[in-house]
Amino acid sequence: MSYPDDLRDQVDEYLQQLRFSEGPGTEGLSEAMLYSLLAGGKRIRPVLALATAAALGDDPASVMPFAAALEMVHSYSLIHDDLPAMDDDDLRRGKPSCHVAFGEDVAILAGDALYAEAFRLILTEQRADPLRLLRASAELAAATGVNGMVGGQYLDVEAAAAEGPEGLREIHSRKTGRLINASVECVCLLHGVGEQDLLNYRTFAAELGVLFQIVDDILDVTGSDEELGKPSGSDERQGKRTYVSEFGLEHAKALADASHAKTRAALAAAAPAGADQLERITDFIAERES
Amino acid sequence: MSYPDDLRDQVDEYLQQLRFSEGPGTEGLSEAMLYSLLAGGKRIRPVLALATAAALGDDPASVMPFAAALEMVHSYSLIHDDLPAMDDDDLRRGKPSCHVAFGEDVAILAGDALYAEAFRLILTEQRADPLRLLRASAELAAATGVNGMVGGQYLDVEAAAAEGPEGLREIHSRKTGRLINASVECVCLLHGVGEQDLLNYRTFAAELGVLFQIVDDILDVTGSDEELGKPSGSDERQGKRTYVSEFGLEHAKALADASHAKTRAALAAAAPAGADQLERITDFIAERES
Repeated sequence: MSYPDDLRDQVDEYLQQLRFSEGPGTEGLSEAMLYSLLAGGKRIRPVLALATAAALGDDPASVMPFAAALEMVHSYSLIHDDLPAMDDDDLRRGKPSCHVAFGEDVAILAGDALYAEAFRLILTEQRADPLRLLRASAELAAATGVNGMVGGQYLDVEAAAAEGPEGLREIHSRKTGRLINASVECVCLLHGVGEQDLLNYRTFAAELGVLFQIVDDILDVTGSDEELGKPSGSDERQGKRTYVSEFGLEHAKALADASHAKTRAALAAAAPAGADQLERITDFIAERES
Repeated sequence: MSYPDDLRDQVDEYLQQLRFSEGPGTEGLSEAMLYSLLAGGKRIRPVLALATAAALGDDPASVMPFAAALEMVHSYSLIHDDLPAMDDDDLRRGKPSCHVAFGEDVAILAGDALYAEAFRLILTEQRADPLRLLRASAELAAATGVNGMVGGQYLDVEAAAAEGPEGLREIHSRKTGRLINASVECVCLLHGVGEQDLLNYRTFAAELGVLFQIVDDILDVTGSDEELGKPSGSDERQGKRTYVSEFGLEHAKALADASHAKTRAALAAAAPAGADQLERITDFIAERES
């Protein structure tokens, strides 16, 4: 089984037709936003959203604005994470980072604008029952605030999390986990699933987020520069806390295998009749090499 | 007539009880957010929102979450504007800027988090008809994106606007005007006013935004450091385009007087029965000395 590239193609096609600047003078800002947004990648978050819609029996295209917004939020977070005052990364997906290509001021604003335009896209283009759309949008805001993505980045750059595995888990569950969760959960909220189904999908998404991060940490050490699109071992050089630094490479690999099995089991519980595309995404995340 | 300090007190009281960090480790991020958010000021945007609710016959307190969110967005924009890569301002409201007090990385994240938490606050706490709440939230997103606040800041720092009065107006209508507009317009949308009323209130808010900016530019030249909470003439030293640089001080003062009259006339058209608090805010904005 392989990654659902058909869903990724749909996402890429949708992202490519997005335009942000309406008035005169901000074409350059829009260009910087699209530079980062269209830099490629597996589009894991929007593809997860589309695959969740399919698992719930909906047309994947019906959640496309929300899916695209998830990728815009992810893209914004990468731009700000790469800034000199943060992780100071000059390369992203094999290309100069946004601030290297456009300057630090424009990069800060491009990130800010991607976040605003993500909410604008959802709130104007996503068709859904209004109350469900409000709940899903609120979840995305929470997932990206102090108790989600931005708070996780704070824990990371400020080394503010507790020592040991608990602290590491806290960093990752916020920094990358919450947005991956939201990619599944928000689609459940848009669909209006019942409480038990919501709980089951949440459990799957939370475990998938853990799996994603363990593999990401392993790849930072084992991947080649070319595969990663950035110098390998950069987490290590920055003294970042990773599953590899915390547990060693071999134990981290064992944790990844265990997490893969747990994620598949959680998915089977959430979608007893099977969910082909979500299964393929899970396997891809476990077995990917970049 | 004087500024409606009772409304400002209500806003301050509400802002002071906000808490952002739920999990462990992000107390420092929350502290940086509150440092900037609680630094004082006239709270013009949220007070405008409350006063608009009153003009429409609603209890001002009924739109408090939305009003507070407007101030959070404003606060986020000041934090990012002050960054070294942007305007590089070390002082804000007489205190060290957020990045001076907490470091550049924390300041970037504090801004990001204030924006996310603003949407979270609106989408979870603001009581309103769901469809109206969606429309108001969408307007806030649009007002703060590429064609609003962030785009205006881009035009400003990149000197990307057209030459002459048209370009100056474009910068300001986006950078400060759209959020001031939104403070009035979003409350109209929450209330569900008819199309003609919406248009009238929009005209008032647009003119009020112009008035605000002309007076702001004049005060940058005529105000004392102490009154402004930052060194006076800083726009001038940074080579920023202002109403004073474009037209000279005397002509700018005449423009302010004309704009004041236009704003009052637009308000009279929007609220024929009178709108005491909106009138007082308008006069305060025209006559303030800091």
